[in-house]
Amino acid sequence: MDGEYKEFFRKNGGLTPAIVQEESTKDVLMLAYMNEESFNLTLSTGYTHFFSRSRNGLWKKGETSGHLQKVKKIFIDCDQDTILVIVEQAGVACHTGNKTCFFTEVTRFTY
Amino acid sequence: MDGEYKEFFRKNGGLTPAIVQEESTKDVLMLAYMNEESFNLTLSTGYTHFFSRSRNGLWKKGETSGHLQKVKKIFIDCDQDTILVIVEQAGVACHTGNKTCFFTEVTRFTY
Repeated sequence: MDGEYKEFFRKNGGLTPAIVQEESTKDVLMLAYMNEESFNLTLSTGYTHFFSRSRNGLWKKGETSGHLQKVKKIFIDCDQDTILVIVEQAGVACHTGNKTCFFTEVTRFTY
Repeated sequence: MDGEYKEFFRKNGGLTPAIVQEESTKDVLMLAYMNEESFNLTLSTGYTHFFSRSRNGLWKKGETSGHLQKVKKIFIDCDQDTILVIVEQAGVACHTGNKTCFFTEVTRFTY
């Protein structure tokens, strides 16, 4: 890649939230962060790559678990600070073994 | 509310990304940020409220446009740093008039 998205990441302080949604079910699977390098790797390989803030490094989703995410489409939002990646998920997305990372419902509604 | 989610927001530096998904279509509509106050307002009123980083203040989605988001369910992810809000969207979610903020597709796939 030729730095086409450099300005996008620069504007966002280098790191942008990326929502991952499953193509077939439209389930929201997870949210992780991308920097320019992980975004370009995602584009060039066709599999999601992210930047871990806690480990301060790149990671390929599923590299150890085999739960790879094959990229089908990528969207950027209207104010260009969030990425939406539509994927085909191998196995489950969550390291807990759940299909999606969003399995904990907040039940305490007061209305 | 009684500060039940205080630790959740403290751990996340006060501000947490909130993905908004439409219940009926499962479209991902937008991503915005919530602090503890906007989260509690969302819970207590049943309509999404966010915290604007650029305007440094609370906002109720649709307050001026009428495009309110009625909350149906809320999930927190496995590592407790992201919120997923399932809503019934009045009108469109995006200020551009598009249904969703994610209408710009990144087409430059190289694989």
